[in-house]
Formats: sequence, structure tokens, C-alpha cells
Amino acid sequence: MATFDSTEHAHRRFNALTGEWVLVSPHRSKRPWQGQQETPEPEVRPAYDPTCYLCPGNTRAGGILNPEYTSTFVFENDFGALQPEVPTGGIDEGGLLRAEAESGVCRVICFSPRHDLTLPEMDTAAIREVVDLWVAQYQELGARPDINYVQIFENKGQVMGCSNPHPHGQIWAQRTVPTEPAKETVQQLAYFEKHGRTLLSDYLEIELREKQRVVLENEHFVVLVPFWAVWPFETLVVARRPVQDIVQLTEEERTALADLLRRLTIRYDNLFQISFPYSAGLHQRPTDGEEHPEWHLHMHFYPPLLRSATVRKFMVGYEMLGNPQRDITPEFSAERLRTLPEVHYKSAEQ
Amino acid sequence: MATFDSTEHAHRRFNALTGEWVLVSPHRSKRPWQGQQETPEPEVRPAYDPTCYLCPGNTRAGGILNPEYTSTFVFENDFGALQPEVPTGGIDEGGLLRAEAESGVCRVICFSPRHDLTLPEMDTAAIREVVDLWVAQYQELGARPDINYVQIFENKGQVMGCSNPHPHGQIWAQRTVPTEPAKETVQQLAYFEKHGRTLLSDYLEIELREKQRVVLENEHFVVLVPFWAVWPFETLVVARRPVQDIVQLTEEERTALADLLRRLTIRYDNLFQISFPYSAGLHQRPTDGEEHPEWHLHMHFYPPLLRSATVRKFMVGYEMLGNPQRDITPEFSAERLRTLPEVHYKSAEQ
Ligand SMILES: O=P(O)(O)O[C@H]1O[C@H](CO)[C@@H](O)[C@H](O)[C@H]1O
Ligand SMILES: O=P(O)(O)O[C@H]1O[C@H](CO)[C@@H](O)[C@H](O)[C@H]1O
Repeated sequence: MATFDSTEHAHRRFNALTGEWVLVSPHRSKRPWQGQQETPEPEVRPAYDPTCYLCPGNTRAGGILNPEYTSTFVFENDFGALQPEVPTGGIDEGGLLRAEAESGVCRVICFSPRHDLTLPEMDTAAIREVVDLWVAQYQELGARPDINYVQIFENKGQVMGCSNPHPHGQIWAQRTVPTEPAKETVQQLAYFEKHGRTLLSDYLEIELREKQRVVLENEHFVVLVPFWAVWPFETLVVARRPVQDIVQLTEEERTALADLLRRLTIRYDNLFQISFPYSAGLHQRPTDGEEHPEWHLHMHFYPPLLRSATVRKFMVGYEMLGNPQRDITPEFSAERLRTLPEVHYKSAEQ
Repeated sequence: MATFDSTEHAHRRFNALTGEWVLVSPHRSKRPWQGQQETPEPEVRPAYDPTCYLCPGNTRAGGILNPEYTSTFVFENDFGALQPEVPTGGIDEGGLLRAEAESGVCRVICFSPRHDLTLPEMDTAAIREVVDLWVAQYQELGARPDINYVQIFENKGQVMGCSNPHPHGQIWAQRTVPTEPAKETVQQLAYFEKHGRTLLSDYLEIELREKQRVVLENEHFVVLVPFWAVWPFETLVVARRPVQDIVQLTEEERTALADLLRRLTIRYDNLFQISFPYSAGLHQRPTDGEEHPEWHLHMHFYPPLLRSATVRKFMVGYEMLGNPQRDITPEFSAERLRTLPEVHYKSAEQ
């Protein structure tokens, strides 16, 4: 029998950050697709849309008026999944029916007053303002005694459940640590206790040596397709310095993060020459007052598209009941993203 | 402050089967929706479609001819994510880059020769033939020394990534136990070791006493919306007798399972008066030769729709980075499913 070749043979990969597995089936990338096709969204939007509840000066739900903001703008989500005032209490029946009251805060962050922009169409200075807002929000919310975890994220594109194309993200901050960062805490802590270094420092070192999965880098951050990536073009943005949260970044590092986000999202848009949908978000230490030296700041990008602007990857049957599965290898995806230009296709067309 | 009320206040619920959490935001069910709308699929299909690669007598990929089958039909997936012949081997770099060759078998199961049917439109005897095929397949594949887990599932509807409307399911059987059943093994084993009974026996007892989340039942099976349901209309089909796998079912129990699947899927179709999409699958003991007395046969139904035929729940940003979140409570969903008729809306129209 031939020897095992990860570019050809089915295999499982271990996600060192969560302790879970993904099935990789490289031989399967050529199967035909006759299923659901996504409809690409119309790309031409006005700079200001009088019906958009996020545009400056417009009225939101409940009659609240947005200010005439000129850079970023943050407000409490009018339909937040979490609310600060929840009576404490819960349910416990034999350890089988267990519930606990949960309190928190949901906010919306507008990235720009311009209705027609997205991150890749903004300049580094403007993205830097978004980064600064993340820093301020993480700091403010994290300091509250009733908030032990702050999740900052963006859903981009209708296919990712985003209900308004105005460039914006969200923050859900809450009393308890959600499942995914809790898993990452367990894995990072075990590694840190054993090696005295953060898991992502050592992982990054390997990736920078091997180069295969690195997509782009600057002095302070690296973007790579993680070895254990689940989504076809999933990426991980890792801080070179093992900082625990975004507040610890220097001025220079914040600008470097903005620079990398811009270049990464431009490459994403260029991949299929559309405004590329994804969910993305920062993972950083819980704000429970502990130091968490095991934590290493990073950002995940989870884009659903697989093969073109209209064919997405479905995480369904086997994935829901078994574990995630992917066809193209992370190395192949990294290679594709690496070779894309960093000039946005829209400006290149002009 | 008022006392905690799980029908009103945000809370987390613990999934006793996986050990993970879901965030429930009952106050949020009334938020407006302006995002992506699904296009309901055309419902009229011919009984035989000459272009369908699953219809009897038609040619599949690679020129293989389907037999003129008259009830169910199973064949090896022409584009399987798993293949039986994979050289053993793997990668391990510092515990951070870990991969293992994975072998297995992927099969497709046609539920009926009729291109225009779905489970809820088949009679109990025909569904019983599907159950019998599941039994035979689990038995055959599970007996192989190279197969330690058999996942039987169905993706129904384009929105669930199903690429062909001909009624069919799949089997992915493999060397290792995937993440989700592995989590369920851990939780069920811990419970069994402590209490000497299966987790689902005791859970079922509570649910049958409380009645709130029970949707329908017969002598041998119960369908309920689990206390920890993630998807809006998620259900769990539980065997009353704590059997470890489907092979242990008596003749009568197999028919009872078919009966319940028919009645459940009819209710699903009646909910929004469309062919209701979902991913569903059996969870049963690993076929690793161990007895697994902790395992309790059950089936999960994960439907994506939330509010209507066109509005689905998106498991995106917060859900991918934090943990799943739902708006309507499991109790509300159970109530809705419970009050639906068991005559299919299409036959009622006639
Ligand atoms: O095998 P199919 O029907 O072509 O594909 C579908 O089910 C598989 C198993 O759940 C998934 O991996 C695919 O993403 C999905 O499109
Ligand atoms: O808050 P939005 O944008 O209305 O809603 C979107 O993001 C949320 C957080 O990821 C999800 O819970 C919703 O399912 C999704 O539609």
C-alpha cells in the first residue's frame, strides 16, 4: 500500500485550540454540485440609504434617532439577546434539566457612516478607528463586575444571517464564558502549564517555519489558514506577541491589525470577485479578573463559500451529528489566498 | 427584582447529552427580520425523473446503472468523503499539528423508487422498510473490524445542502468515533456509572412527568423538544427501552419507530405547510466491540426554519464564536408541534 499523503487521503485533523476534530477528504473536491445556489447580493448601494436604521441621522426601532456620526458609532442593540437586568435563578432537576439566568449586554458597532462601504473598501486609518472602538468596548464592558466575557464579532453578507448591509459588527458581553472560548481556555491552559509558553506562540513558530499555511503577515500579526480549519477559506489572525487581549496592544500593533484586516478582506473579496461573506470575531481572555497568561489574542474568520460566489459549504447532516468535514485542504486554500492581489477588484476595474 | 422566569428572561441551558450550553433569549422572539429569505422549493415533482441519478433504471456518475428497485436501494457513494483503502499514517508536530489517516465507507440510501415522495408522504409500511435497511446496514458495517462508528442520517431540502430531492439518506461509517457521539459517550458513561441507569431513561421519565416538551409518543418511542434544543424546532426521538442500538429493536419496536417518524415528519410539513427541511440522524453505540451499556438509542432532528417557510435561524457570529443561541423556548416549540394535525396538508387539501 502507498504511504499516507495528506493531500490525497482522507484524514482527521485535531484542533489544538478546541480539542475537537475535523474530517478532511481531499480526494472529494471534484464532486459535482447540483444543490442550492446562493444569489450574489446586488453590489451597488447608495452612500446613504434613508430606509437604513444604521445610517447617520436615521430613526431606529422604537423611535430612537442615530446621531450624525462621522466615523464609528456604537449603540445598545434594540433587540438584544442579552439584557443587563435579569433576576438570578435557575432550574436543576437531577442534573438533567439545568438552566441558569444569564445577563449581559448586546451592542451594535457601525464601522462607517457610509452605507455603501465594507471593511475591505475602507482605508487603514478608518479600520484603525474600528479597532480602537473594539479596544474601548472590551475595556469598558470587561471592567464591569457583571461581565466576564466580551465577544466582538461581525456577520457579513445575507448568507451569514446579516440583516443589514450597512457595515457593522456586534458585541455580546455576558456573565458566563461561552462554550467556544471555554474550550479554548482549557486547551490553552493545559499547554501553558506544560510548556510555559502560549499554545499559539509555539503553533505560530511552526507555521512561520513551514510557510505552507501562511497567507500574509506584517510586523505584528500573521494571517494563516489553521491546520485544523473547518470552513473552506477559514483563517486565523494571530498576534505575534502573546498578549491576552486587545487592550494590551501598542499603538503600532493596533495599526498593524487594521492593516492586516484590510489586506485580508481585500483578498477575500478578490477570491470570487464579490463582497465576500463571513462571520469573524476576536477571541481573547475572559474578563473575570483573572490574569489568564495562557490566553493568546486571535481572530477567527469563518467564510461559508466553497467553490464560487454561489456555491457554499453546508455544515449539515454528518457535520451536525458527527463532526465538521471539509474537501479542499487548508494548504490548498492558503495557497489560493496567498496568490491573490491586494488591490480590491472594484478599484482595479476603474 | 422579579423572580427568574424561563419564559421571559434570558438564560443558559445545559445539554446533558453533550455537556455544552445554549443561550435562550425568549424576550427576543419578536425582533423584525429584514435579512435573507429562503425560496421555498417547487413542490410538484414527477414520480420518475429521467435526469435524476437516484431514480430506478437511471445512470449514475461513472456510468453505473441503478437497478429497477421497488422499495429501498443502497449503494456506495460515488463521491464518498471516506474511502475504505487509506494507508495508515499521520502527522504529529509537538501535539499542535496532528493528523491521522481515516478510513471508512459512505453509502446512499434511497427511501423509495418514487422521485416525488418524502418520508411524511410514505406510509408506515414503506418507512418500516427504511428502518429495516438502517438495521441491516448498521449491523453489516458495524461488524467490520475497520468500522467503529456508523452514522446514519438524512439531509432534507436544499437549505440543508441536499443536492437531489429524490428521498434519500446517507451512511458514513468510519474507523474513529466522531466528535458529537464521542461527547455523548462521555456524558452518558459518567451518568451511567453514577446512577446505574441510562441518562436518557431518567431524562425521559422527567419529560413524561412534566409533559411540557413532549410532542408525540407511542408504546415504544417518544418525540420531544429537548430541554437544551438548539434549533427552533429541534426534536429528539427516544426509545423507551434503553437499547444501545437499532439492531436490538424488536419487530414491534421497529414498526413503532416507523409510525413515529411518519407522524413527526407530517407535523413538520404541516407547521409551515411546506416540505419541511431538516438534517436528522440516529445516534447509537460505537461499533468498537464494547458493550456500551451507557448508550441509549435516539435520533436527532435539526430543522433550520424559525418563523415561516422563508425565515431560517442562522447559526453564525455569536453562535460560531460563542455558543448556540435561540429565541423561542423549547416549550413554546413543543406546544406548537403538539397542536398540529397528523394528516398531511397535501392530502387534506384534496
Ligand atoms: O453528500 P452530499 O449530499 O452531496 O452533501 C451534503 O451532505 C454532506 C454530509 O452531511 C455534507 O458534507 C455536504 O456539505 C452537504 O452538501
Ligand atoms: O443580530 P442579528 O444580526 O439580527 O442576527 C444575526 O446574528 C446573531 C448573532 O450571531 C444570530 O443569533 C442571528 O441568528 C443572526 O441572524
